[in-house]
Amino acid sequence: MKMTAGQLAAIVNGTLEGDPEIELSYPSKIEEAIPGSVCFLGNLKYEHYLYGSPASLVIVPTNFQASQQIHPALLRVENVYQTVSQLLELFSEKNEAVSVIHQSAIIDPSAKIGANVHVGAYTVIEEGAVIDDHSFLGAQVFIGKNVKLGHSVKLFPGVRIYHDCVLGDSVTIHSNTVIGSDGFGFVPNQDKSYKKIAQIGNVIVGSHVEIGSNTTIDRGTMGSTIIEEGCKLDNLIQVAHNVSIGAHTVIAAQAGIAGSAKIGKYCMIGGQVGIAGHLEIADGSIIQAQSGIASSIEEKNRKWYGSPAIDYFTFLRVYAEFKKLPETSKQVRDLINVLKSNQSQS
Amino acid sequence: MKMTAGQLAAIVNGTLEGDPEIELSYPSKIEEAIPGSVCFLGNLKYEHYLYGSPASLVIVPTNFQASQQIHPALLRVENVYQTVSQLLELFSEKNEAVSVIHQSAIIDPSAKIGANVHVGAYTVIEEGAVIDDHSFLGAQVFIGKNVKLGHSVKLFPGVRIYHDCVLGDSVTIHSNTVIGSDGFGFVPNQDKSYKKIAQIGNVIVGSHVEIGSNTTIDRGTMGSTIIEEGCKLDNLIQVAHNVSIGAHTVIAAQAGIAGSAKIGKYCMIGGQVGIAGHLEIADGSIIQAQSGIASSIEEKNRKWYGSPAIDYFTFLRVYAEFKKLPETSKQVRDLINVLKSNQSQS
Amino acid sequence: MKMTAGQLAAIVNGTLEGDPEIELSYPSKIEEAIPGSVCFLGNLKYEHYLYGSPASLVIVPTNFQASQQIHPALLRVENVYQTVSQLLELFSEKNEAVSVIHQSAIIDPSAKIGANVHVGAYTVIEEGAVIDDHSFLGAQVFIGKNVKLGHSVKLFPGVRIYHDCVLGDSVTIHSNTVIGSDGFGFVPNQDKSYKKIAQIGNVIVGSHVEIGSNTTIDRGTMGSTIIEEGCKLDNLIQVAHNVSIGAHTVIAAQAGIAGSAKIGKYCMIGGQVGIAGHLEIADGSIIQAQSGIASSIEEKNRKWYGSPAIDYFTFLRVYAEFKKLPETSKQVRDLINVLKSNQSQS
Repeated sequence: MKMTAGQLAAIVNGTLEGDPEIELSYPSKIEEAIPGSVCFLGNLKYEHYLYGSPASLVIVPTNFQASQQIHPALLRVENVYQTVSQLLELFSEKNEAVSVIHQSAIIDPSAKIGANVHVGAYTVIEEGAVIDDHSFLGAQVFIGKNVKLGHSVKLFPGVRIYHDCVLGDSVTIHSNTVIGSDGFGFVPNQDKSYKKIAQIGNVIVGSHVEIGSNTTIDRGTMGSTIIEEGCKLDNLIQVAHNVSIGAHTVIAAQAGIAGSAKIGKYCMIGGQVGIAGHLEIADGSIIQAQSGIASSIEEKNRKWYGSPAIDYFTFLRVYAEFKKLPETSKQVRDLINVLKSNQSQS
Repeated sequence: MKMTAGQLAAIVNGTLEGDPEIELSYPSKIEEAIPGSVCFLGNLKYEHYLYGSPASLVIVPTNFQASQQIHPALLRVENVYQTVSQLLELFSEKNEAVSVIHQSAIIDPSAKIGANVHVGAYTVIEEGAVIDDHSFLGAQVFIGKNVKLGHSVKLFPGVRIYHDCVLGDSVTIHSNTVIGSDGFGFVPNQDKSYKKIAQIGNVIVGSHVEIGSNTTIDRGTMGSTIIEEGCKLDNLIQVAHNVSIGAHTVIAAQAGIAGSAKIGKYCMIGGQVGIAGHLEIADGSIIQAQSGIASSIEEKNRKWYGSPAIDYFTFLRVYAEFKKLPETSKQVRDLINVLKSNQSQS
Repeated sequence: MKMTAGQLAAIVNGTLEGDPEIELSYPSKIEEAIPGSVCFLGNLKYEHYLYGSPASLVIVPTNFQASQQIHPALLRVENVYQTVSQLLELFSEKNEAVSVIHQSAIIDPSAKIGANVHVGAYTVIEEGAVIDDHSFLGAQVFIGKNVKLGHSVKLFPGVRIYHDCVLGDSVTIHSNTVIGSDGFGFVPNQDKSYKKIAQIGNVIVGSHVEIGSNTTIDRGTMGSTIIEEGCKLDNLIQVAHNVSIGAHTVIAAQAGIAGSAKIGKYCMIGGQVGIAGHLEIADGSIIQAQSGIASSIEEKNRKWYGSPAIDYFTFLRVYAEFKKLPETSKQVRDLINVLKSNQSQS
């Protein structure tokens, strides 16, 4: 699609400096701009790319001052990132495909399929499942017995949802993610082999949750594993049995949360973070990538770092000293020698 | 299903304190109990939930003493966790589905399918595969050429098993796990590009092994990658080519084991642990979550922590000092200053 | 297949010591050799396995000197590992299957399928896709709209490629890997919930790239996520939106690279490494397993270790002191006490 600079300025409610008839053909990053590109400058670290840029339009903060002459038109807006989000929405290819139940989909006669639902090729929907209106199931999806999906759910190819799990409205799940596999529960036998504990719970995912690809969310042993509304989970994340994650918490790729941990609302959990089981994380906690949380966090809205994690700023100070350990240790040895020689002299 | 307190007491061989006619409708965690719930108290940390609980029955250790008046009946047993395991078994929905070969399954005529085998919709079984009696293959599974499955194997939807791999009896594998993909083997060419090494081995999985979802187990370069009987692997685990894992070892989610490592029997490997290639881990080793094992462990039954890992209890002492590094370093600087001023005075 | 020692010597251009008529039935590791085995000795650490080995032939370096009498014939070669690579190639079962479009494959009429292309059972190819000659798509693969695959691409069962992604020639991707899922991009709303940023870019994978199983490569938010030619990625790796990875870089399992990071050419990235977003890694960087890269690396061809990572050799020295921290701290406390007692005496 194409639009003019003037049209875009009107839609996003910005102030245009330049010709409103300029044609915009595609959003791009400022360092990759070509004529026709609409770019943005949200972080002044990238300002040098502006000078000499062949872009047709650059979105900048209201108070931006160019320090050199520039070629692109400028569009001044209050919140650059929100405007970019609007821009990408405008340029994203709408899935205008008519919703169809592909003839190869195997849907148990007892399943209830709402209005305007799309079911892709080779998708399997088992007995008792309920799919609400406007949901989109891609190809090769598996929906187990008695699963319930809200309206406007979007499942990409290869998603597997085990029996009895429940997804709210407008949930999006990317390819090959597994919801509701058995929790990792075994009890030792006398002979040190293990006996499996039946996992009779389910997973409940709140509305407006988005989950990336190849992520795994295990069902509760009894009761539910719960992802509250608005959470955003990235790729390759492990959520164990009976975990609960509070509303609007975001979790980056490859993080793992062990069984029965209770994560608060509005947390930010970095990539490759590990959280031990049976603990509680206060609302608004921010956990730096690769950190390990080994005990409960009771104070809200604090930032953590390290494995096991401590206060973020303390960790930075500690790590600065850690890197100097060889010198510090040498100083200690030197002190011991000085004292020894002092004592032998006295 | 429902049962009475008296029936349950008889099945699990426990001592009931309360009305044997009480109806039990569902197992639940004690903090989520409602009337009809059968709960358990295995860890006294949760005892406060007992007082005021509307649960109908609570399973407790033989010697448990309530410190306040309680509503639920009590069922005293020797091993609470084993009894809970029995309880969940009783309440787990039995898969009473008749085993059927779904008409959409594509099974090569040369494959041998045993008695009472279930093959789900859109599952593909290639030539020469052998599936023993009572095995259950879910929908959309892939079984490569000459794969051999023992009896009572259970594969959830989307499992992929590459050619020539061998699974023992009663193996369970969860959705989207991959068995037998190529090992990560490349040799550098003169020009610093890489040439692939053909991976002609396979994977051998022993009986009673359970593997979670989205886990990957690579085939041997030559010879086999081996998971011995009774091992339990969680989700998102990486097992590289020619690794061998001893019987009854358990591995938590997101751990990774590099090529040709040899893990002992009865080990416990925590989440996100990394184990380097070409080393040996002694039987009974316990490795704390997020640790990294960089060299062989020769002594059995010890506990390890850190990256690279050291003795667990040593690590705890070291880490306690690590957190105090800024103060310790200041003390060293102060000492140096005191000595300097002493020396300039003398 | 079988060959004689003499035939193998001729093919790999080596010098045979022994009977050229010896029959070789299978390559195996020297510690697992049986009569008929052809083995190799690349690392003298394993030399003791040679003595008493029932192997029929062992490949050794040109200058190898046996210190005891041996049974196997020897084949002397200049580069043992390259010869083993040739050997495995010779013994690997060639996929001589005729390329067929399985009748159950669903291919949109607008897709263009080249000559000699194989499309497996239950694979779905959407509109506008282009598959070049000699490519092999296994069973249950998903190819989205307008995807372009070069020639001789090999996709194992369950691979999912989202719309608009582009793969070069001779790309190999293992089972259940996802290419082109949405980047993890959300902007906070006023009420602290999140709004999704449309992800309108794609993924471009260069020629001769190999990617393991259950790996995820997200599409660019705008522009492309780029994996340059010759890269080798292992299993369970996360590559976020707009990352670029330079040619011939190798990445071990479970590593993760955050959004917009720019990795150089010829890098070696260890298992479980985490790399933060929006930074640059110089060509030839070597990053030790489990390390975390939190800021750009500007100097080429250096080795890094730790989280956050520092110079590899410095880390080894620092960690040696880290393990001695309890003693060092005690020395500091002792020094303080000595000085105090000295001062109180003086």
